[in-house]
Amino acid sequence: MAQKCCKCKCAVSELHKERLNFQPVLPSVLKKGIANVKPVLGKATKSVADFDKIKAIFEKTYGMPVVSFQAGKNAVVSKKAIKVGVVLSGGQAPGGHNVIFGLLEGLKNANKNNKLIGFLGGPSGILDNKIMEITDKVIANYKNTGGFDMIQSGRTKIETPEQFEQAKKTILKNKMDALVFIGGDDSNTNAALLAEYLKKENTGVCVIGVPKTIDGDLKNEHIEASFGFDTATKIYAELVGNIERDVNSARKYWHFIRLMGRSASHITLEVGFKVQPNVVLIGEEVLAKKMTLGQIVDDLAKLVVKRSEMGKNYGVVLVPEGLIEFIPEMKALIAELNDLLAENEAQVAKLNSVDEKIAFISKKLPKNLASLLNSLPKNIAAQLMLDRDPHGNVQVSLIETEKLLIEMVSKKLKDLKKAGKYKGKFSTINHFFGYEGRCGIPSNFDANYTYALGYNAAALVLNNLSGYLSSVKNLVAKPSDWKCGGIPLTMMMNIEKRKGKEKPVIQKALVKLNGKPFKEFAKVRKDWALKDMYMFPGAIQFFGPSSVTDITTKTLQYEQK
Amino acid sequence: MAQKCCKCKCAVSELHKERLNFQPVLPSVLKKGIANVKPVLGKATKSVADFDKIKAIFEKTYGMPVVSFQAGKNAVVSKKAIKVGVVLSGGQAPGGHNVIFGLLEGLKNANKNNKLIGFLGGPSGILDNKIMEITDKVIANYKNTGGFDMIQSGRTKIETPEQFEQAKKTILKNKMDALVFIGGDDSNTNAALLAEYLKKENTGVCVIGVPKTIDGDLKNEHIEASFGFDTATKIYAELVGNIERDVNSARKYWHFIRLMGRSASHITLEVGFKVQPNVVLIGEEVLAKKMTLGQIVDDLAKLVVKRSEMGKNYGVVLVPEGLIEFIPEMKALIAELNDLLAENEAQVAKLNSVDEKIAFISKKLPKNLASLLNSLPKNIAAQLMLDRDPHGNVQVSLIETEKLLIEMVSKKLKDLKKAGKYKGKFSTINHFFGYEGRCGIPSNFDANYTYALGYNAAALVLNNLSGYLSSVKNLVAKPSDWKCGGIPLTMMMNIEKRKGKEKPVIQKALVKLNGKPFKEFAKVRKDWALKDMYMFPGAIQFFGPSSVTDITTKTLQYEQK
Repeated sequence: MAQKCCKCKCAVSELHKERLNFQPVLPSVLKKGIANVKPVLGKATKSVADFDKIKAIFEKTYGMPVVSFQAGKNAVVSKKAIKVGVVLSGGQAPGGHNVIFGLLEGLKNANKNNKLIGFLGGPSGILDNKIMEITDKVIANYKNTGGFDMIQSGRTKIETPEQFEQAKKTILKNKMDALVFIGGDDSNTNAALLAEYLKKENTGVCVIGVPKTIDGDLKNEHIEASFGFDTATKIYAELVGNIERDVNSARKYWHFIRLMGRSASHITLEVGFKVQPNVVLIGEEVLAKKMTLGQIVDDLAKLVVKRSEMGKNYGVVLVPEGLIEFIPEMKALIAELNDLLAENEAQVAKLNSVDEKIAFISKKLPKNLASLLNSLPKNIAAQLMLDRDPHGNVQVSLIETEKLLIEMVSKKLKDLKKAGKYKGKFSTINHFFGYEGRCGIPSNFDANYTYALGYNAAALVLNNLSGYLSSVKNLVAKPSDWKCGGIPLTMMMNIEKRKGKEKPVIQKALVKLNGKPFKEFAKVRKDWALKDMYMFPGAIQFFGPSSVTDITTKTLQYEQK
Repeated sequence: MAQKCCKCKCAVSELHKERLNFQPVLPSVLKKGIANVKPVLGKATKSVADFDKIKAIFEKTYGMPVVSFQAGKNAVVSKKAIKVGVVLSGGQAPGGHNVIFGLLEGLKNANKNNKLIGFLGGPSGILDNKIMEITDKVIANYKNTGGFDMIQSGRTKIETPEQFEQAKKTILKNKMDALVFIGGDDSNTNAALLAEYLKKENTGVCVIGVPKTIDGDLKNEHIEASFGFDTATKIYAELVGNIERDVNSARKYWHFIRLMGRSASHITLEVGFKVQPNVVLIGEEVLAKKMTLGQIVDDLAKLVVKRSEMGKNYGVVLVPEGLIEFIPEMKALIAELNDLLAENEAQVAKLNSVDEKIAFISKKLPKNLASLLNSLPKNIAAQLMLDRDPHGNVQVSLIETEKLLIEMVSKKLKDLKKAGKYKGKFSTINHFFGYEGRCGIPSNFDANYTYALGYNAAALVLNNLSGYLSSVKNLVAKPSDWKCGGIPLTMMMNIEKRKGKEKPVIQKALVKLNGKPFKEFAKVRKDWALKDMYMFPGAIQFFGPSSVTDITTKTLQYEQK
């Protein structure tokens, strides 16, 4: 316990200490050294939709080819030392520190005088020029650790012309040759816009993105996974598996477990594969089938009755946190509430109780939505009235959808009992897992993947491929066989309305109902519902048999099949 | 994934598969074989209090000596094959299956024709004669796994004369020579009473107890730990550590985390040592200092203000689930409510809303308690009115004390803000961890410890030491050096009032304020409060360096110093 972590002065745990000594595996192609890989250009690319609009916005960076790195002497990589900035943007995801670790080692591999500068506290660090140099000594305390505490992150967006200008000033003032943005879909959208801006301004500054998010919603054929998804889903699966073992032992509770993941249900589906619970709700399916809250509740109640008739008054239900937004009627209600609360902010703020607020807003709602709002359990209606996020949207993680379902299923079952159609017992326990998984020690997969993403980002920087997203693929193979390269950020874009205005944004990758993972799930879920096919994955293992330590996600396995 | 678990037909996870092959380490003394260890008798013992009353109840089993096993030819161990029953009682704890695994191997070591029979579904399985034979083949699917699903557990108590008679009938009908009770303080109390009963009835049946509970409240100098405490606290520490890393990265939330553990704060204190959060509330200290809810809230608010002045609008607070019962005024309120709700059950049941129930009960409460009830946030007051457990007690795990504290601290801070004494921001997130830790895959420590406890229980059975609790100690040493023996269950007893009647019960071991663990905590907590000394233990590791896989609890380390 003697070893100290230099910055926070805290003693470190035994596992923490061990992980500081882990050396991630580099894909063979990058192992040859940055000067010995060359970018091979593919065909020109298109945005996923709205080609003309996207092209008009990204005059300088639209349509660039996919790039793959292959062995070969590289004449482009400059001999002169360069200076690169790096920033973490948005919510934490396991592996962020290793992106920076890989980036530093990639830069040093090309020229030991290359420098890496971290912007502190997220993109606001760029606007305010808050920086610190990231040296080998600094990184030594953060290798293979969770969290973003080395330089911290933030949610400030760089998106206005004034902000782009300010960012340019900071970058030029610091004599930086490149900037690496580690972020999710929104952050990488802004990275793309900044890349375009800096190219238009002829700064020669290269902007590279790295795909981060535990939610798994930033992906396509070249970005097989965003980092953090593997670790977060393993942590949630450990917990849900433990609960299933408890359920299978006690056999007296229905556990309703909500999982983080924002809109997309990738996390819930992946955890579902890992633990095989009785029910896995998928928001994207609810949307596609235009299901009402009442239908979801009826389906759940039916299963509770059926299992009860089999003598099983217990079960496990996984609920994605984004579910509520996918129920068309709830989506409409939330959208109306977003607008009404914004329009009537001052008046609503004056009202003292939640009841008064609900009554005030109900009068302004269309009739059907007012009656929906008033049919909800009181606590859930209150949560829908809570403060919005900076974009004016409801904060889904604050809505206890699992409790909503419990209350409504419970009510339904009472009616069925009165009608003599149900004789069972419905005792429930609810959970929400989110923060527990965002800063876990990255799994071996995520430690290797993020290190490779960072090292690869250095290669993109040194080849001056501005506007590219770091792409490391073939992820179901072993790390040495992973393929490296980059894809143009514009390739992932379409036009969406944000606050009433058309904006270019990276399209969120939702669960596809015709995709292999969902299809696999659809095949087996009936068995999961009635038979108890619970699986208990246990804690993430960093040492031991490769069958245990090197498991990739089921999502990847099915997608890459 | 081809390997199936025979009973539930489910595929098993990769880690699960590996753990089935782990062979626990047996203490050297037992390794010699049951026929080669002999019990060495110590001095006669006394109960912890109420000597005469306990002695009068336990005529046949009071005052027996402490027993330690040592190498030596054993003439007592019978050559004839015996049949032993085993039962799991009460809540799940990691390692239950390994007690049965060790017990089976101990019995088979003495005579391969010995038989082990499991009672199904807890003590009710004894009353209803629900049994299954536990063979090598059965155990093969449960070695080193979490949960109690092999034979399940239950909360039925065997405590009335009719129940004792029924238990005797079942045991004799099955021609059992012994019964092993795996349970917590209450279950082992009943085991002691059954041992006494069966001795008085001259059945020759031996009853042995095994100390189980994640809560850590069943211990003394001979029972250094109850099994499951190690694993559960490691799982909770993984989660709290992950949250701390998030806190240290995002620096914008106060997380209030309630931890399971019933009355005692052992779990919370141990997790505190492992993660070093800003605040660790200890119920036993609140009781000793006769603190009011208001004082606890004031102390927390003071710290929030102080940290805010240091620029730190974030922190982590651990709350033991038993806290609320230790606040003298709350304890009085809960006791009154327990009585009033029991006395007025029918009338209360007729009232429709919680508000009506609170109003009805408030009128019957003493004035000070009525005003306390009405001063509580509505949701908490409602939780205090919820259904009682079978013993008529409030179910502490259902009271969201962490939310109570958040609401009250928040209110206090608003007042301070109005008075110009606080300028910070108090954004909060709350958590409750309990079920996640009860059925985890047992740590190497718990896997070895439970195996030894079971094997040792076989030795106690074969030496016909009825009324003893399996004791494996010297637990900070390596497993081969652990010492084995037994202590008379009566030694841990005193008289307490239960439902108005005097009963012999095993005294619950609470956190001692003059004990070494609490004293160590008292030394460092000021630093934890203001400096951010967070530690990130990460997930339980089963493979890899011994420094990581074989960590014992801090509680044990301090207690055994």
